[in-house]
Amino acid sequence: MTDTATPPNTPHRVVIVGAGFGGLEAANSLRNADVAVTVVDQRNHHLFQPLLYQVATSTLATSEIAWPIRHLLRKYKNIKTLLGTVESVDTAARTISTADGEVIAYDTLVLATGARHAYFGHDDWEPFAPGLKTLEDATTIRRRILTAFEKAEREPDPARRAALLTFVIIGAGPTGVEIAGTIADLARDTLKGEFRVIDPATAQVILIEGGARVLGAFAPDLSAYAQRALEKLGVQVHLGNPVMKCTADGVEYAGKFVGAATIIWAAGVQASPAAKWLDVPADRAGRVVANDDLTAPGHPDIFVIGDTATVKNGDKGTVPGIAPAAKQQGIHVAKAIRARLAGDIAPKPFRYRHAGDLATIGKRAAVTDFGWIKFKGYVAWWLWGLAHIYFLIGVRNRLAVAMSWLWISVSGTRSARLITQKDAADEDHLK
Amino acid sequence: MTDTATPPNTPHRVVIVGAGFGGLEAANSLRNADVAVTVVDQRNHHLFQPLLYQVATSTLATSEIAWPIRHLLRKYKNIKTLLGTVESVDTAARTISTADGEVIAYDTLVLATGARHAYFGHDDWEPFAPGLKTLEDATTIRRRILTAFEKAEREPDPARRAALLTFVIIGAGPTGVEIAGTIADLARDTLKGEFRVIDPATAQVILIEGGARVLGAFAPDLSAYAQRALEKLGVQVHLGNPVMKCTADGVEYAGKFVGAATIIWAAGVQASPAAKWLDVPADRAGRVVANDDLTAPGHPDIFVIGDTATVKNGDKGTVPGIAPAAKQQGIHVAKAIRARLAGDIAPKPFRYRHAGDLATIGKRAAVTDFGWIKFKGYVAWWLWGLAHIYFLIGVRNRLAVAMSWLWISVSGTRSARLITQKDAADEDHLK
Repeated sequence: MTDTATPPNTPHRVVIVGAGFGGLEAANSLRNADVAVTVVDQRNHHLFQPLLYQVATSTLATSEIAWPIRHLLRKYKNIKTLLGTVESVDTAARTISTADGEVIAYDTLVLATGARHAYFGHDDWEPFAPGLKTLEDATTIRRRILTAFEKAEREPDPARRAALLTFVIIGAGPTGVEIAGTIADLARDTLKGEFRVIDPATAQVILIEGGARVLGAFAPDLSAYAQRALEKLGVQVHLGNPVMKCTADGVEYAGKFVGAATIIWAAGVQASPAAKWLDVPADRAGRVVANDDLTAPGHPDIFVIGDTATVKNGDKGTVPGIAPAAKQQGIHVAKAIRARLAGDIAPKPFRYRHAGDLATIGKRAAVTDFGWIKFKGYVAWWLWGLAHIYFLIGVRNRLAVAMSWLWISVSGTRSARLITQKDAADEDHLK
Repeated sequence: MTDTATPPNTPHRVVIVGAGFGGLEAANSLRNADVAVTVVDQRNHHLFQPLLYQVATSTLATSEIAWPIRHLLRKYKNIKTLLGTVESVDTAARTISTADGEVIAYDTLVLATGARHAYFGHDDWEPFAPGLKTLEDATTIRRRILTAFEKAEREPDPARRAALLTFVIIGAGPTGVEIAGTIADLARDTLKGEFRVIDPATAQVILIEGGARVLGAFAPDLSAYAQRALEKLGVQVHLGNPVMKCTADGVEYAGKFVGAATIIWAAGVQASPAAKWLDVPADRAGRVVANDDLTAPGHPDIFVIGDTATVKNGDKGTVPGIAPAAKQQGIHVAKAIRARLAGDIAPKPFRYRHAGDLATIGKRAAVTDFGWIKFKGYVAWWLWGLAHIYFLIGVRNRLAVAMSWLWISVSGTRSARLITQKDAADEDHLK
């Protein structure tokens, strides 16, 4: 990997594209190494996606789960941060290009560009069923949920009012389950007594999953528990039938149409176009089919990590697309780069260690599966909360999030119930 | 005022348009009265505007200074809240109409519709010099400030880079002074050490005021102190010349052009169109010229308060357009309505009690003028902070804001440095 034209005495240039869990961890693990690292991201902030649904459901403020990337990396003088949108990679010249026309040279490239939600060929559903990947997605969903209640309060037509009070969540993975549980809490608890015409507790929350159970990645008994916990919160769980259609008026599934003003998409992701940039094989979700050592096929100087890549997990299928996996990959790549620079160029296969699965259902229940031990109910909820606070960055955010949760737990009050950034598309949608 | 067609035994209907300081206080003061109150606002939240500049400068999160109106009024069963944009008043039929076509009947109407920033006939400046009145304004300004530093970091052209690092604030009232001081703090302190190419401390912060001194409403010695404090923070204060032009590239004033990518408008306000709805006389800023008892001329059943109205302040000019004045007016109107219903229909002139003026300059200095006693410096800063925390709503927000301030004071870290809701206009503007 050193046939490049780097002048002598110039440190090895590592470019990391994307500062999500994988990219940020790779950068952190290269701190003070004898490499010049450039981190490029189209956002100025790293986002703690596992709690994004809490922004979407009015629990947390955006700034409680996002930090300026530049600030996180400020102390490492060998690392610089650039705000920019990468549009292509020239693997022959070893450069990347941004939308602003900037060209950045690399010796080693780390692509940690993440994924967006995917509609499986139905991109026209997106305006009606927004997904949840960015802070803007979260404020859009928050705005739609809160606006639906406001519109219901002044809607004289009963059918239209019922549709405004119907919330459909598509996909019952952790995000879908967590959103459904929290909307149910919001309707039954937070909004109690605040309306004069409607009773928010009559809101219908419908969770639709094409597969056979909720939380398909978890152990079956935890799935069963989670479903019971959701139903106890008043969530209607529909399994085994995929959604056939999303419109401005509702969803079609299992041969019927349900009127709903608010639809939230939590059903699938599509990787960033990294595979296209490199012209290498991708799986159905657009992820680069990576080598065992996380390099891209035919490109030993390019690593692909997190949601950008799919990689074998020994004999247990593929590594899951979750934050801990991306972080482990980031560390692995940093180690490989350090080893190579020390002269050890033998490929190091990545070994994934699965720490566990966690999901919460409303504000009292959760399921946690650590493989060797499983928890459900209140104990699991505490484990879930402690784990998430532990993995947040910075003392201040830990305190702030803990305080927000404590406040909801004690008072039922959600502090971030703001309808902001109203846009024409919404107006059109929720009229 | 009771010649209307209200059926017997129907409570007197009070409609309050706008839930800013004045409208919310009027509603609060009518709690449990024998009136049916409807509060209509185009936003779902009440906003604590005195701290809005802290959202614009990355100090506070949006949810720390805004609360759902519905939530604030939930306990008062005689009050209902509606999200809606009022577009007209039919004073003969005693109804208001919303953009959604809703028609709401009133017996007494309270217009507390506030103001927007005004460009004195230069509305074409708005895209280049956004003002600060709403949460969206604040996130727009925050995005522009932070984006300017990011773009400067990767700008090779020195002149263009200098313009990206120049921040012009137009208008040196409390908001302008507070924004200028906080941007100076941000550049010199918060961003220190985070960039590799630029030195954020070299940023120029220019405060332009057409009048003879900063904080024109304060005592002259406090103005002089505030100017020195600003200059100590590195703010360039230019007095006595109005801005002649704002463009995408900078501002023209005092016969010269200064290149600046970020311009913030803090120079003037324009009242909502309430005077047009009522077809009554307005002053130059569009405020209804109200009677002594805060009714609109010729409309004893319509009160106009806060920035919607201008009213004489005895022999001391007019009542200032500040939060405490609006709140006092809200209370006055509620008392007048209660008195009228009790049979006392004599007009009650509004008497304004000026509690004082406060403004902060950066994170160490402030000026407070209570008339009988004045403070400047650190003591004033503490008074300012305590007063603002006291007037925030809810224990949780007081704690959260106090924690954010403590954190900045101790660590210099601003928690809300997020570039969000990027839109086409910005891209165009900051390219």
